[in-house]
Amino acid sequence: MSDSRIQNAALRGKIMAADDAAAFINPGDNVGVSGFTGSGHPKAVPQALARRIAAAAGRGETFRVGVWTGASTSPELDGALFKVNGVSMRLPYQSDPDCRNRINAGEANYTDVHLSHVAQNAAWGHYGKLGVALIEVVAILEDGRLVPSTSIGNNPTWLDLADRVILEVNAAQSARLEGMHDIYSVALPPRRQPIPLAAPADRIGDPYLRVDPKKVVAVVETDCFDRDNKFSAPDENSRLIAGHILDFLQYEVKKGRIPPTLLPLQSGVGNIANAVMAGLDDGPFNDLTAYTEVLQDGMLDMIRSGKLVCASATAVSLSARALGDLFANIDEYRKSIILRPQEVSNHPEIIRRLGTISMNGMLEADIYGNVNSTHVLGSKMMNGLGGSGDFARNAYLSIFMTPSTAKNGALSCIVPMVSHVDHTEHDVQVLVTEHGLADLRGLAPRQRARLVIDRCADPRFRPALDDYLARAEKSANGKQTPHLLGEAFDWHLRALRGEAM
Amino acid sequence: MSDSRIQNAALRGKIMAADDAAAFINPGDNVGVSGFTGSGHPKAVPQALARRIAAAAGRGETFRVGVWTGASTSPELDGALFKVNGVSMRLPYQSDPDCRNRINAGEANYTDVHLSHVAQNAAWGHYGKLGVALIEVVAILEDGRLVPSTSIGNNPTWLDLADRVILEVNAAQSARLEGMHDIYSVALPPRRQPIPLAAPADRIGDPYLRVDPKKVVAVVETDCFDRDNKFSAPDENSRLIAGHILDFLQYEVKKGRIPPTLLPLQSGVGNIANAVMAGLDDGPFNDLTAYTEVLQDGMLDMIRSGKLVCASATAVSLSARALGDLFANIDEYRKSIILRPQEVSNHPEIIRRLGTISMNGMLEADIYGNVNSTHVLGSKMMNGLGGSGDFARNAYLSIFMTPSTAKNGALSCIVPMVSHVDHTEHDVQVLVTEHGLADLRGLAPRQRARLVIDRCADPRFRPALDDYLARAEKSANGKQTPHLLGEAFDWHLRALRGEAM
Repeated sequence: MSDSRIQNAALRGKIMAADDAAAFINPGDNVGVSGFTGSGHPKAVPQALARRIAAAAGRGETFRVGVWTGASTSPELDGALFKVNGVSMRLPYQSDPDCRNRINAGEANYTDVHLSHVAQNAAWGHYGKLGVALIEVVAILEDGRLVPSTSIGNNPTWLDLADRVILEVNAAQSARLEGMHDIYSVALPPRRQPIPLAAPADRIGDPYLRVDPKKVVAVVETDCFDRDNKFSAPDENSRLIAGHILDFLQYEVKKGRIPPTLLPLQSGVGNIANAVMAGLDDGPFNDLTAYTEVLQDGMLDMIRSGKLVCASATAVSLSARALGDLFANIDEYRKSIILRPQEVSNHPEIIRRLGTISMNGMLEADIYGNVNSTHVLGSKMMNGLGGSGDFARNAYLSIFMTPSTAKNGALSCIVPMVSHVDHTEHDVQVLVTEHGLADLRGLAPRQRARLVIDRCADPRFRPALDDYLARAEKSANGKQTPHLLGEAFDWHLRALRGEAM
Repeated sequence: MSDSRIQNAALRGKIMAADDAAAFINPGDNVGVSGFTGSGHPKAVPQALARRIAAAAGRGETFRVGVWTGASTSPELDGALFKVNGVSMRLPYQSDPDCRNRINAGEANYTDVHLSHVAQNAAWGHYGKLGVALIEVVAILEDGRLVPSTSIGNNPTWLDLADRVILEVNAAQSARLEGMHDIYSVALPPRRQPIPLAAPADRIGDPYLRVDPKKVVAVVETDCFDRDNKFSAPDENSRLIAGHILDFLQYEVKKGRIPPTLLPLQSGVGNIANAVMAGLDDGPFNDLTAYTEVLQDGMLDMIRSGKLVCASATAVSLSARALGDLFANIDEYRKSIILRPQEVSNHPEIIRRLGTISMNGMLEADIYGNVNSTHVLGSKMMNGLGGSGDFARNAYLSIFMTPSTAKNGALSCIVPMVSHVDHTEHDVQVLVTEHGLADLRGLAPRQRARLVIDRCADPRFRPALDDYLARAEKSANGKQTPHLLGEAFDWHLRALRGEAM
């Protein structure tokens, strides 16, 4: 397939096996890899690198690298490298079990960053030097331009910053992805200019990635599909949460605060998010748009049904079934899907301008509306912040949603005080559980608490939350945000002892 | 003075005494007032309103209003109205003792909002209906256009949204402020366009406020100076903090990460901020610019000395001495000072584009770099968030600074876990105390903790912080952000008992 997929003669001369390519990665290198929520990540070289690392370990040598990605990847990348404990530092988002375990065992440093900040922070040198860029593409044109894959993430930045570049050309990805991407690079201060994007469908860049061919040390051919991002059918709680959000959006439209076509949608990943999309697909709104991070099955369904006229994202993260549909009908889908660098898909300037309706999951919220998206019981990292902060802070509506309880009802997801804060009371406007929706806009903390307990908490936990609030209002040192610091975490301490909250 | 200051005949016909104007404000009204950090607030009508409210109370009637401002005001406004308990709801920032006491007694609702969010939230109706706009101006032109005063804040929004408008024309403010302002209004989604501002000196609007003359119910003449925003001479700690920041900025310039003219400066209010400005005024950097919220004495000194070539803000908040200097030399100062609506001075789009160097004070930080700017010991409101979040989240550098201890060394401003989070680990890059500076960029939480303890904590508290961290690393349920939830607030609980931390 080299002939059709790798048109550039010089780069065709660099084709080699994954194990030979991995030899260009040295101990201590930082490696900037492609990949965003299980799509568009390199499939072969990371596993070859893991073999090198294991071999070095066999010789008693330490071989570890820093791994910078777009977001989460897959077993072939994070899984393979963390299994051999080959990663010293990882950023900015992960969801692989081996990766998570190393982080929480204290065996790897994990820097959790707003996804929109990664590219500029790397360019400013905050993360050190980037040795290697390892990027999956679907084709290399004759003039050396690169056709991006199913995600873009930080690829333009990695290609710019790296000393050496390794390209994986994946024949399993449709070559007709060509033209779906819009690569726009944001300058660094003091040379930044307004980003000329005023609607999700606007194209402001060009469809190809560019790389200095002299930096390319290896080209590796692969033929392997993205991770099968399966979804379970929406459960009852997800359907109830979706229903509350739809009712609320209808109310906002009725009030004239948002147009009948709504405002651009941003939706986090996961089953609840997918259920909300399913609800919107059956709902009363038409000509919808999305300005989001990841396009999942739910949004693809909405494009197919005609409900969603345009979706801008940085990655398509689909089930195998949906990916097959995307590739089979890609000339149609290309009219409605734009993939951008994550610095643009998550850019505060654009999100604030468009006024997105942002819907993100969470681990827990407290009665005052602070949200914990990342840390289980205060200390243990789950997946990371992702883009939730980029969107929540600048959206027209920042909605956070979760079932009201976890662990078969033993744990309340509404607590007196969250054990870690990722989104402050200032950035959380709406909380939703299966029991209801709390619209916190414009309310003072004690008003928020009343609403969060009555609308969102599981009824079995409401009396205890009421009791905490009532006693805090009586005895706290100030009544703006009454807390009892001596027992604010008692609920989490019970959970840590394996008891119900 | 009416002839010179109030040129519009129709509005001249509306001139009346403050007590008569206050009669247009009814119980239950929301009142949008001008005023930002003690400058440009109405001086007469609020006190007249307070008299009405007291009289109503004398008759056993309840008379309370909602008060929406730019930021903090003064004794003539917050002081007068809160003394008579006449305010049911206040937003978005305050610093008056009577106001703070009512809030912490639970007698008034206080909604603490990012300053850049206030105008759009009000326009979207999140705060309810705006009955009255009460705005200080320095003159009314023949065609009815208004010359703004020493602050702009949310005035354009209040004038647009209010049913009725009361204008105070203050003869004590220089009429030659005319031309210093740049009023640009940001549309609401889905009609928002890029804001065409790419440098602090760019003028994108027009120098006047506009109001529908039919809405103006009263014009009141005043002759009263702004609050005298006195500063104490920088103390030793402030000078040390300023020194650490200057050394750090020189290092960043040497590394080539920022130009020798730095990037636009944002500085919070207060003595430490002023000390940093004094340090910069004596420092090695030239042709500096500022894109900030409030212009204080320190920046005025830098403009006079020629160090600062342009300062963009939404308010000048000066000592009486400095205000005299501003007015005496205003034709010179007007070349270098631009006052904008706070929606623009604090806009995330602009701050991210310019890449400001943001320096803000705080109450406490924890070892992982989370910052509490608002709540004393978790529950008690101090002043509010102000614009610190608008800037910290989008700045090139977000620096938070405080002396390492409070209450004569009894309390540590570096604690195991902050009792309230206003700025998360994701948005805090640099912490500074008199002992040193911790550059947290790119570090994982445990690396941050090491640096915060060693560089910023007072040596007397370091052993206890080391002990907490060491035991947390051993026994927490995860090593990403190790905490001991059972004792995370023991330091605050000791302080609540009146003991040393």
